[in-house]
Amino acid sequence: MSKVNITDVILRDAHQSLIATRMRTEDMLPVCERLDRIGYWSLEVWGGATFDACIRYLKEDPWERLRKLRGALPRTQLQMLLRGQNLLGYRHYSDDVVRAFIERAADNGIDVFRIFDALNDIRNMETSISAVRAAEKHAQGAICYTTSPVHGIEQFVTQARQLEELGCNSIVVKDMAGLLTPMTTAELFGALTSTVSLPVHLHMHATAGVAEMCHLKAIENGCRHIDTAISAFSGGASHPPTESMVAALSDSQWETGLDLKALQEIGFYFREVRKKYHQFESEMTGLDTRVQVYQVPGGMISNLHTQLREQGSLNRIEEVLQEIPRVRKDLGYPPLVTPTSQIVGAQAVLNVLTGERYKTISNEVKLYLQGRYGRAPGKVNSMVRQQAIGNEDVIDIRPADLLDDEMDELREETNDITHSEEDVLTYAMFPDIGREFLTERNADILVPEPLEPIGNGQGSQPKPTEFNV
Amino acid sequence: MSKVNITDVILRDAHQSLIATRMRTEDMLPVCERLDRIGYWSLEVWGGATFDACIRYLKEDPWERLRKLRGALPRTQLQMLLRGQNLLGYRHYSDDVVRAFIERAADNGIDVFRIFDALNDIRNMETSISAVRAAEKHAQGAICYTTSPVHGIEQFVTQARQLEELGCNSIVVKDMAGLLTPMTTAELFGALTSTVSLPVHLHMHATAGVAEMCHLKAIENGCRHIDTAISAFSGGASHPPTESMVAALSDSQWETGLDLKALQEIGFYFREVRKKYHQFESEMTGLDTRVQVYQVPGGMISNLHTQLREQGSLNRIEEVLQEIPRVRKDLGYPPLVTPTSQIVGAQAVLNVLTGERYKTISNEVKLYLQGRYGRAPGKVNSMVRQQAIGNEDVIDIRPADLLDDEMDELREETNDITHSEEDVLTYAMFPDIGREFLTERNADILVPEPLEPIGNGQGSQPKPTEFNV
Ligand SMILES: [Co+2]
Ligand SMILES: [Co+2]
Repeated sequence: MSKVNITDVILRDAHQSLIATRMRTEDMLPVCERLDRIGYWSLEVWGGATFDACIRYLKEDPWERLRKLRGALPRTQLQMLLRGQNLLGYRHYSDDVVRAFIERAADNGIDVFRIFDALNDIRNMETSISAVRAAEKHAQGAICYTTSPVHGIEQFVTQARQLEELGCNSIVVKDMAGLLTPMTTAELFGALTSTVSLPVHLHMHATAGVAEMCHLKAIENGCRHIDTAISAFSGGASHPPTESMVAALSDSQWETGLDLKALQEIGFYFREVRKKYHQFESEMTGLDTRVQVYQVPGGMISNLHTQLREQGSLNRIEEVLQEIPRVRKDLGYPPLVTPTSQIVGAQAVLNVLTGERYKTISNEVKLYLQGRYGRAPGKVNSMVRQQAIGNEDVIDIRPADLLDDEMDELREETNDITHSEEDVLTYAMFPDIGREFLTERNADILVPEPLEPIGNGQGSQPKPTEFNV
Repeated sequence: MSKVNITDVILRDAHQSLIATRMRTEDMLPVCERLDRIGYWSLEVWGGATFDACIRYLKEDPWERLRKLRGALPRTQLQMLLRGQNLLGYRHYSDDVVRAFIERAADNGIDVFRIFDALNDIRNMETSISAVRAAEKHAQGAICYTTSPVHGIEQFVTQARQLEELGCNSIVVKDMAGLLTPMTTAELFGALTSTVSLPVHLHMHATAGVAEMCHLKAIENGCRHIDTAISAFSGGASHPPTESMVAALSDSQWETGLDLKALQEIGFYFREVRKKYHQFESEMTGLDTRVQVYQVPGGMISNLHTQLREQGSLNRIEEVLQEIPRVRKDLGYPPLVTPTSQIVGAQAVLNVLTGERYKTISNEVKLYLQGRYGRAPGKVNSMVRQQAIGNEDVIDIRPADLLDDEMDELREETNDITHSEEDVLTYAMFPDIGREFLTERNADILVPEPLEPIGNGQGSQPKPTEFNV
C-alpha cells in the first residue's frame, strides 16, 4: 500500500484558518458533486469553530449543514474535529453528553472523528473514542504536536501506543501551529510508523511555509495520509495546496491517483467563492515564519496583535511574545491549541500589562492549576500554583469523573425551544448563542450577518479578525 | 561543505514575477544595509526585464541603479541574468557588443553573471562566458529545464559537462516554468552533482507549489545553492520564501546560518513596499498547477489569457493551450523562455485563430527555422519548414558568426545623445525606448509612470499584466 491518501480540509479548517470560518453552505453545495468524484480519503467538514460560526454569524443550523453535505457527498467519508471531552465547547462535558453527541453526529453523517485533547491527556479522549467505536465509525486519535523539554519523539510514540490500545483506527499528528521542520517530521514519522500498526496521518498548518516539505518527509517515512486544502484556500495559516501535493507525488511511488485537472476546476470554483468573503481576509493569515522563532501559533500572534492594538499596547507585543514561553513553562508546557492557547495568551498579556507577573491571575489559569482541564504534560510551577489557588484541592482524576449525567437536565432546560436531540446538543455546546439561535430559528427570524459587496475597496485593506487556534 | 547558500532574488526575479518588474530603486536602497548584513551568497539585482522596465516605465537609468546598489551592498555579491548572445535584448549581438556589455556590467558592480540560451545552444553562451572570465567575474552557465522527448537527464548532464569545459564557475538548473517535481529533481541533481565538479544551483519558480519540495530534494542530492525570495514577494509565479527555506533547514546538516529574525524584519519591510505597487498585482501570478498539466509556464498562460480576452477569443484558450505542445514539437522542442515562449505562443494563437495551422507564419518562426536563433534541441518538422521558408538557406553556424562588429556604428549612431559607453549599450539593448529615454534624460524631462494611491479600491481587483517568461 504505497498510495498516499488525501483528506481535503476545504470545507472546515481551510476557511476557518483564512476567512474566520465564514464559508456558507450555499457555497459548498454547488461543488459537492465534483468533490465527491475526486476520490478523497475524506473531506473534513465539521468542528467547533464551524459549529459556532454557523449559529453565531451565518444563522445556519450546523446539523442541517451536515445533513445537506451528507446528501451531496454520498461517496466520500465525512470527517469532523472533536475536542475530546470538550466536544465542540469550552468545558468538560459529562460522559452521557459525549455519547449522545457522537451518536447524533454519526447518525447525521460523520464517518471519521478526529479526537484531540489540548493537554494530550488521553483520559480526556477515552469516552469519545469508545463512543465512536460503539457507533461503528472511524476513531482517529490525535497527538497535538508541540515542542518543550517534556515533549519529544519518545512521548509522542508512547501516546500513539496508548491511542492504539484504546482502539483508535488511526493516529494523526496535529501540528496546529506549523512547528514541525522537515528533519523533525522525518524522525517523528519514522518512529511512529515503525511502532504502531495503525495508519499515521499528518495535519500541519502551512504558516511557516515548510508544510509541503514536512509532508514529503512524512511520506518518505511511512505516512500515507496527508491533509491538504484546495489551492484557493491553501497556504499561510491554512494547509498545503491539494493540487500541488498531487502534482508533486504524481511521478512517485506514492502517487495519489487523483485527477489534477478535476482538482484545478474545483480550485477555480473556490477562487471565486473566496472573493465573496473578502471582508474576513486578514493581513495576518499569510506566510509567517515567526512561529518557528517564538514557537507560538500564527493565529495566536494575530489575536494578540489585535488585542494589544485595541488596548493601545501594541508596543508591548514583543514582551508578550517572550512571556508566552515562560507562562507555558509555569503551566507544565501545555501544547498551544484551543483552549490552552487562549489561557496561556491571556495570562501572558496580564503578566506584561499589569507590570507584575501573576499579579492578576485569570480564572482559567486557576482551574487549570486545579487540574480541571486534565494532567499537565510537565510539572507546573508550584510557586505560581500556590499564588493562584493557595491550598485549594488539586484533582488528579479525570475531570469528567466529577460530573454527573447532564442530558436529562439539558433536555428539561430547553424543552421550550428544542425540537430534537440535536437541538439539545446545540444548546449544550453553546448555551447563550445556542438558545438565541434556537429561539430565532423557531420564530423564523434568523438573519445572517451581511456581506460587503465585492470590489468596494474594503477588500484591499484586510482587517484583523479573530481566529481560533 | 554542507551549508546551503542562498541567492535572494527579491530585487530582480521576485518583483518581475509578481508586480511586472516595477519595484523602484527608492524602495530598494532603504533596506540594503539590512540585506547586506544577512550573508547571502548573492543578491540577484539585474536582468533584461529590470533594465527594460527602468527605462520604459520607471524612467530610471538602469546603470545608475546598479551603481547605487553596488554602493549600498558592499559586502554581497551582485548577480545578473544574461540571455547569452542576446544580452538583455531580443536579437543576437555581435561579439564586440557582448564583450563591451559584460565589461561595463562588471565594472559597474556585477559579480555573478548567470548566462542562458533559450535553446540551450551553448555556442550562444561561449562569448559571454569567456568575457566574464576575462573580467575576472563569476560565470554561471544555465541549463534551461524543460521536458520533451529530446530532453532528459542525459542531455542535461552533457550540457553541464560542456559548460564546465567552457570555464564556467558554476552551473544552474533554471526551471522558469516550475516544471520540476521532487522525484525528477532528486534524479537530476544526483546525476549532475556526481558528474561535474562545479557547484550546481537551483533556480525554480514556485508556480505549481512544488518548488520548496524540489529544493529540498535537490539539497539532499548535492545541491548547495538555492534561489529564494523574501516572503513578501514569494510564492506563485515567484520563488520559495527565503525565511521558510532557512527555517526548514535550520535543524539539518545543511543549515544556512542566516538569521531568521533579521530576514523576518526584511520581510515586513517588503510587505509594506508591495502595497505601493498594488496596481500591478495580477490574479494570474498565484499558485497554478496547470504548468504541470500543460507543461507551459504560468506567465505564458497569463499572457495568452490577456491576449485572447482582448481579441474576444477567450473561449479558444483551451485549444491554444493544446496547440502549444504541437508547435513546440514542430520547432524541435525549444524550452519555453524568452524569446522562444513568445515565438511559440504567438504561432499557437495564429494556428488556432486563423482556423488553419501555419496558414499565417510569424517572421520570428521563419527566422527560427532558418537557424537564426541557434540550433533547435530536436529535429524540426520539415513540412512546416518548407511551408515557412521554402528553399531559403538554413544556417548551421553560430548566428553571431554572421555579424560584424557593431560597437563603432552604435557609438556613431548615438553620439548626439550618449555620454558614456553605458549609454551606448542602453541604446544597443533597446534602440527605440533607449533613444527616447536618453533624449528625455538629457533634457531632464523624465517622468516615471504614475502609481495609484494605496487603498482606492483598485487593489481589490487585480488586472492582467504582461509578464516576461
Ligand atoms: Co488545523
Ligand atoms: Co526566474
